Amino acid sequence: MSKIYIVGIGPGNYEEMTIRAVKALQQCEVIIGYQVYIGLVEPYFPGKEFLSTPMAREEERCRLSFETALAGKDTALVCSGDAGIYGMAGLFLEIGQEYPDAGIEVEIVPGITAASSGAALLGAPLMQDFFVISLSDLLTPWEKIEKRLHAAAASDTVLCLYNPSSRKRKDHLRRACEIVLQYASPDTVCGIAERTGREGERIQICRLSELKDTPVNMFTTVFIGNSETKEIDGSMVTPRGYRIGDGGNG
Amino acid sequence: MSKIYIVGIGPGNYEEMTIRAVKALQQCEVIIGYQVYIGLVEPYFPGKEFLSTPMAREEERCRLSFETALAGKDTALVCSGDAGIYGMAGLFLEIGQEYPDAGIEVEIVPGITAASSGAALLGAPLMQDFFVISLSDLLTPWEKIEKRLHAAAASDTVLCLYNPSSRKRKDHLRRACEIVLQYASPDTVCGIAERTGREGERIQICRLSELKDTPVNMFTTVFIGNSETKEIDGSMVTPRGYRIGDGGNG
Repeated sequence: MSKIYIVGIGPGNYEEMTIRAVKALQQCEVIIGYQVYIGLVEPYFPGKEFLSTPMAREEERCRLSFETALAGKDTALVCSGDAGIYGMAGLFLEIGQEYPDAGIEVEIVPGITAASSGAALLGAPLMQDFFVISLSDLLTPWEKIEKRLHAAAASDTVLCLYNPSSRKRKDHLRRACEIVLQYASPDTVCGIAERTGREGERIQICRLSELKDTPVNMFTTVFIGNSETKEIDGSMVTPRGYRIGDGGNG
Repeated sequence: MSKIYIVGIGPGNYEEMTIRAVKALQQCEVIIGYQVYIGLVEPYFPGKEFLSTPMAREEERCRLSFETALAGKDTALVCSGDAGIYGMAGLFLEIGQEYPDAGIEVEIVPGITAASSGAALLGAPLMQDFFVISLSDLLTPWEKIEKRLHAAAASDTVLCLYNPSSRKRKDHLRRACEIVLQYASPDTVCGIAERTGREGERIQICRLSELKDTPVNMFTTVFIGNSETKEIDGSMVTPRGYRIGDGGNG
């Protein structure tokens, strides 16, 4: 019986993969993914068969994984970040219903998502409750995204924004900032992390009033602090509510 | 100049650590942490000096890390999951202000957080926007937690709950469920992941109406789906809004 691993490779550099993800890719005969992610892993797994499809061909990649496994080859379907956070795991499990009697074992291997990798570069913005929202309205209606932005900001919750911009939707971050500004101070500490773990990696800390005019792209993750978030020596830090001197909860 | 790494070790099993985390621990002379986490990593890093403090001694661990590095030893401060999500990174950076001229380099190494590791076991509950909330009121007032639960549920957002219970607060999950039930169907698909990556690992999928009476503990992560979350062949899946047949956004 062949096996399919849905593998989160993390931000993109080899060292940020888990040992489990590396072993899964080593174990497979075929590695399938969006061509950019295949390009990231290919140098580290010589001798494998690599199959890639362009962007927006997610279903094709899922079916290709099933077909490859049905042909008797252990297969890995790779995603950047975590396979389960805006990754391929969900669609894959849905498509799996088309192969009811395939008898293929499926294992989802988690990876470091952009919320974690970006936060680590910026300092510690996610030490309290946080809301992860994608600003892409390709798969979620913009009204629903706006509703969630209101909910996060009204409850003074740290926001982590994925997909803040693309060629087709350049003003989404501005519109998100305008919503948050209805509840939060323009001095709220914010940060962006770009191309984490890849060439051109950079971070920037700014205030909410500046964030809306900060250029972002599809490789940027945006963090908007809550009312307690501070800048400490160039790092973005949301205190967890530890009253220093009083102990904490471990 | 000595260096301090704040290292997220992931759920607890060695294979779920990133290569970067392993290298950081190998590079250090001293590894510091809460005794349970030291117990998890100790077998894999022979020859290191291990220092641990009991629960609720986070500040002590931070200062011990600085003192050790000041004594000229590269030091790792380990946390379970991700160092930046309810981990030690934030407190560490705050305590760092007490050592302004120490000249110690600090590197935060992200790890797989319970949202990712638990989701991977359950299926793919976090494929859409989600809200991460800790039900511990030791560091956040319960009123604020309730406000965030209302915000999440009212905006039909998937919830991922950390610290759903402890000896002192046995009814927090029940109270959280009662809030969500004001907005969501009792049939909402929910899941729990317990002791992920450790001995005794287990998952359970249930409905929101059953969740409030489901026993949980401090090693449980709870997932409450949104109105679209389904159970597919024993997995908890939140469709990302991919209309199968229409393509997606990659």
